[in-house]
Amino acid sequence: MRVRAREAGARFGDLPTGRRNMITDVPGVKVGHCTLKKGEGALVQGAGPVRTGVTVVLPHAGNLFQNPVKGAYFDLNGCGGLSGSLQIREFGIIETPIGLTNTMSMGTVADALVRHLLKQNPEAGLSIDTIIPIVSECDDSYLNDARGLHVREEHVRTALDFAGEVVDEGAVGAGTGMTCYDFKGGIGTSSRMVKTPSGEHVLGSIVLSNHGTRDELLIEGAPVGKLVKADNPKRAEHGSIVMIVGTDAPLDARQLGRVAKRAAMGLAKTGSCANNGSGDIVLAFSTANVHDRYGHKGLVTEHLLLDRDLNVLFRATVDSVEESIINSLFKAETMTGRDGHVSPELPIEPVMEILNARRADQNGA
Amino acid sequence: MRVRAREAGARFGDLPTGRRNMITDVPGVKVGHCTLKKGEGALVQGAGPVRTGVTVVLPHAGNLFQNPVKGAYFDLNGCGGLSGSLQIREFGIIETPIGLTNTMSMGTVADALVRHLLKQNPEAGLSIDTIIPIVSECDDSYLNDARGLHVREEHVRTALDFAGEVVDEGAVGAGTGMTCYDFKGGIGTSSRMVKTPSGEHVLGSIVLSNHGTRDELLIEGAPVGKLVKADNPKRAEHGSIVMIVGTDAPLDARQLGRVAKRAAMGLAKTGSCANNGSGDIVLAFSTANVHDRYGHKGLVTEHLLLDRDLNVLFRATVDSVEESIINSLFKAETMTGRDGHVSPELPIEPVMEILNARRADQNGA
Amino acid sequence: MRVRAREAGARFGDLPTGRRNMITDVPGVKVGHCTLKKGEGALVQGAGPVRTGVTVVLPHAGNLFQNPVKGAYFDLNGCGGLSGSLQIREFGIIETPIGLTNTMSMGTVADALVRHLLKQNPEAGLSIDTIIPIVSECDDSYLNDARGLHVREEHVRTALDFAGEVVDEGAVGAGTGMTCYDFKGGIGTSSRMVKTPSGEHVLGSIVLSNHGTRDELLIEGAPVGKLVKADNPKRAEHGSIVMIVGTDAPLDARQLGRVAKRAAMGLAKTGSCANNGSGDIVLAFSTANVHDRYGHKGLVTEHLLLDRDLNVLFRATVDSVEESIINSLFKAETMTGRDGHVSPELPIEPVMEILNARRADQNGA
Amino acid sequence: MRVRAREAGARFGDLPTGRRNMITDVPGVKVGHCTLKKGEGALVQGAGPVRTGVTVVLPHAGNLFQNPVKGAYFDLNGCGGLSGSLQIREFGIIETPIGLTNTMSMGTVADALVRHLLKQNPEAGLSIDTIIPIVSECDDSYLNDARGLHVREEHVRTALDFAGEVVDEGAVGAGTGMTCYDFKGGIGTSSRMVKTPSGEHVLGSIVLSNHGTRDELLIEGAPVGKLVKADNPKRAEHGSIVMIVGTDAPLDARQLGRVAKRAAMGLAKTGSCANNGSGDIVLAFSTANVHDRYGHKGLVTEHLLLDRDLNVLFRATVDSVEESIINSLFKAETMTGRDGHVSPELPIEPVMEILNARRADQNGA
Repeated sequence: MRVRAREAGARFGDLPTGRRNMITDVPGVKVGHCTLKKGEGALVQGAGPVRTGVTVVLPHAGNLFQNPVKGAYFDLNGCGGLSGSLQIREFGIIETPIGLTNTMSMGTVADALVRHLLKQNPEAGLSIDTIIPIVSECDDSYLNDARGLHVREEHVRTALDFAGEVVDEGAVGAGTGMTCYDFKGGIGTSSRMVKTPSGEHVLGSIVLSNHGTRDELLIEGAPVGKLVKADNPKRAEHGSIVMIVGTDAPLDARQLGRVAKRAAMGLAKTGSCANNGSGDIVLAFSTANVHDRYGHKGLVTEHLLLDRDLNVLFRATVDSVEESIINSLFKAETMTGRDGHVSPELPIEPVMEILNARRADQNGA
Repeated sequence: MRVRAREAGARFGDLPTGRRNMITDVPGVKVGHCTLKKGEGALVQGAGPVRTGVTVVLPHAGNLFQNPVKGAYFDLNGCGGLSGSLQIREFGIIETPIGLTNTMSMGTVADALVRHLLKQNPEAGLSIDTIIPIVSECDDSYLNDARGLHVREEHVRTALDFAGEVVDEGAVGAGTGMTCYDFKGGIGTSSRMVKTPSGEHVLGSIVLSNHGTRDELLIEGAPVGKLVKADNPKRAEHGSIVMIVGTDAPLDARQLGRVAKRAAMGLAKTGSCANNGSGDIVLAFSTANVHDRYGHKGLVTEHLLLDRDLNVLFRATVDSVEESIINSLFKAETMTGRDGHVSPELPIEPVMEILNARRADQNGA
Repeated sequence: MRVRAREAGARFGDLPTGRRNMITDVPGVKVGHCTLKKGEGALVQGAGPVRTGVTVVLPHAGNLFQNPVKGAYFDLNGCGGLSGSLQIREFGIIETPIGLTNTMSMGTVADALVRHLLKQNPEAGLSIDTIIPIVSECDDSYLNDARGLHVREEHVRTALDFAGEVVDEGAVGAGTGMTCYDFKGGIGTSSRMVKTPSGEHVLGSIVLSNHGTRDELLIEGAPVGKLVKADNPKRAEHGSIVMIVGTDAPLDARQLGRVAKRAAMGLAKTGSCANNGSGDIVLAFSTANVHDRYGHKGLVTEHLLLDRDLNVLFRATVDSVEESIINSLFKAETMTGRDGHVSPELPIEPVMEILNARRADQNGA
Repeated sequence: MRVRAREAGARFGDLPTGRRNMITDVPGVKVGHCTLKKGEGALVQGAGPVRTGVTVVLPHAGNLFQNPVKGAYFDLNGCGGLSGSLQIREFGIIETPIGLTNTMSMGTVADALVRHLLKQNPEAGLSIDTIIPIVSECDDSYLNDARGLHVREEHVRTALDFAGEVVDEGAVGAGTGMTCYDFKGGIGTSSRMVKTPSGEHVLGSIVLSNHGTRDELLIEGAPVGKLVKADNPKRAEHGSIVMIVGTDAPLDARQLGRVAKRAAMGLAKTGSCANNGSGDIVLAFSTANVHDRYGHKGLVTEHLLLDRDLNVLFRATVDSVEESIINSLFKAETMTGRDGHVSPELPIEPVMEILNARRADQNGA
């Protein structure tokens, strides 16, 4: 059983983590996976090997269409898809579960989320608005029979049904077939506790990691990707990373857009330079200041942090995203996929030796 | 048989139109519709009445994924969906057919376009990139059983198969169930010929009109929506308009983004103020400077108009989009949809009386 | 004495105007001009003829740096300058008076506003932040000895000192040397009363008009620029328009960004297609939800309109900006400037004949 | 005499530097400083102490207004000023020298650049366009009598006159009074050689560093700010950093915008999380594809790199910006400013001990 980065001794900044060190430390947030893994050997289009899945992130467990959360996105590199992006920017809200999957299954996941939301909202498309779900993606075609389009509506439903507060990491859900810095990647999560003038808050992140080349990888600033001995099958670049940041700190959409940009700084610290073919996309949401979309009349009242009090949230974002990415590497196991393509796991022990030697040195300095 | 605005005598600026006065006057551009119309009377979810469809716009008839065109978008009001938007902005290209449909069928149309493009590109998702199709939408739930999700993959294929250079307007394809200024709307198109330092070019537009309230409607600047006597069933606002501008003038993505903003000015001249719930989305593309995406090596050479020579294209955009919107009204016939909702056709004769009286006056001035 | 458009009988939509039909109907807003007009005849650089000036718009009469208002901008066409734009977008506020002047005097006006604000804020640059003033511009070099750089610090101080609630229009302040649709333009203002779920509010606008060509001009949708007989000296294109929208309706920066886009639609209705060389820039602010920047601790509370209640503000913006632009034409008198360049005034009587004939016709329809 | 980071043994990625390891390795680029340093002791407003200056970056030595270079900007955190930003985005060019100074002297520097460009372009404001200069800033008020507004037109002229290819670093020019990670900062520069399908190119960067807190500082990924013993006077946060990236690789504005975002990743690697009050602004330009603005007729021809060939430029940007920032620290000497405020220099020897210990360890790994 592989351990998380922090369990192995890695550290990412000075802020304390939340209870689980997961995005679900933000009260109300739930994450669900449906992992699709079937077959071995040579690719037979439509038959596999299947190495893909679906992950859903729920900013709260209720009806998001009726009670949307504040939201924003930032695309550091827009080589990727984000359905619903225009509405996120226009209204500053996230009004559906966030679906993650492989690139070419975005349509299927969008359709499945529409069907889910129609059930939940019997008046949608009748007396109230129609629905545009939020879906993003990475490309798992290095391991997965991506052309086989194996994701189906029921897989989204499974991910929704199984959503909970304990988040599996590594090669699960949408992360099943992903590769990160030429190691096996996928899902990683982390959280931070922050003290603000409005009291203590949680900020958490979850990533779907599928980006980077081996020699870029930094952990705790150390060039681990170059230093560690490990197989490097060097897939052709078609990476990407989706980073989702959630918090219960009271921020509006403008402020969340600021937070979203800091996620890119956490990514940078793991060594990426956001390669051309990498869709490096950030979503950020706050669960504070939710109101009843159709029930509310008159003015809404929002209680917000001052901008000058945001620094601790910026720091928490950088550190948490960095840790989430590294967690996706620590937790994922070696996977063989289509046509014998291999995505090798990060060798934890030699990595920690490198980090520990540095830390020892530090203490001596 | 209803006539187009220009056939009835309406005029929109001084620039000459292209041969057909359609976006397909831009060499290579094709448009295809699949119209879904079935059933009458009270809504039975999943059974109808069906008043919806699919429209595809092909910037050229070849393989767009291999030979993308330059592209840009502008969202005047982002209450709507545009799949693929991040990539359009990042790379400045349009690399798939543009699909239009009703809001909640976007996922299905995206999925169908993926399947179409996978067939056309047997190496996509293997040795070359995966595919994120471009799909946009308006909400036809006033007339259509939108919750029934009646659009299916085969409808997209039909629209692709039937794509050609003669564009049906009004209540066809994605426009089947749309309503514009509380009249029946849908598809409209128009084009302009422009002289530039690189010779004569065509700029055309096609709209999917579903926006506005009756009293806003202006034609040739006249407040026709207020002046003309006609039933006004006043649907609750949930409009939107998608405007697509194409040209063979050599523009890059930055310049096309400038063109896209002018489409909003054409919309403004028909009276809209881009209501809160209206997704007012513009796509612009140029068919010049296409290169072979995977075959090309080394530098690409682009021949581009100077910015200072763009004014005639800006004017052509404003005028053409204005005419396309009005064409969508002139060509659409009264439609009754779910639960007896009626979208009445624009009464052409009284409208032209108003316009002609003004023009007579003008000549006397 | 020339009259305003509404006094002459022109109408722009159905919403009632504020008491003065000026942006200063928004409680607290003040506008000040300093008009520089000197010399005749051939250009002697540095000596004139001088046809320029400064206008300042104060969202409130207090200390804007201590108590900034919510703000946003939209650049329909970014061929122009807007100092302070990055901070407006980042923080969603306007924290200095807004200065308007000719293009190449922006630096001088910025410097003068810094000096003014340093006096007002003795701790700025010591214990609190330094200051980046907001300045925008149009190019009056058709009439003015622009190369002479005639604006000086004291002119900005004069504009600030004379700021009040009665706004002179036409060829005054920053508008002194401006030309609009090849007529004499400059400053115009207007306002609207709107009813919202939070009660009645005012939305006003003020423009600095310097854009467009004669044949583009529309008034009440009528092609007045083509119809009316008047000299047309046809300056070479180097127009621009700055549009400022203010309101006491409680909007945050995201919502004000939406309002700002609608100003472009008002501009479109006067006939512009936002020519290549035209800096078409919109600023929008709300005087609600002001808090004490340095004094406040903890969360701020904001009371905001729901997005779905904004339509009436969008309509007010379109109509008010349209009227402001036309007011700038109605109020400006013929001016002769450098090298005998003439900017002729709009001939009001023949224009009103055209409009009245149409309206008569309308009533008969 | 202090050494540059690389001379001391620090390394930033694997790409080779240009000949001088300065932005001026890009052929044609010149940089000029004017350093203002006068007085000691307690602040007497208007009298000093003066710790400020002006830096100009010239993308080429000719007439930039006649022959603009391609350009773009990215504001990671828009708490800062960038005059001319709207035109950069609209036209994708940089058409004036880039001026850098302290925040409240932006107006003065803009005015001085206007005067300089008017001389260089006798038709500007007559038969051709007026001028909006590009100026950006950081706030040096911790050391400098910022309220004294000590920068004058002649200082800009001096910086222009002295522009050359050898770039002084540290506390010079606009960097004179800047503080970076609570060490003395200011100007730093660096460059990289890259191989592309169009041959070898140079990409260089120059920064004006004034951001960050001590405990954030990372060098080569090591938490040097925490590890090294050094005085930390802890100024209140009012940092900022301007990063300018130049290259002779043939990129258009869209591609330069992509490059600009990568500069933020280089910044992230030095430890910053882009604090709330930090204006973190990037400008990027390419000296390829310059054409004669007023002389050219007809289409322009641009030769451009394919997007998929940009990765090496992205990497060069990240590494070069990281090194430029660290160079600004290595080269700056301790400075005492107003009211005895001290900005201590980075202690190079202990820093290199930390880095070397790590590197030794690495080699053993």
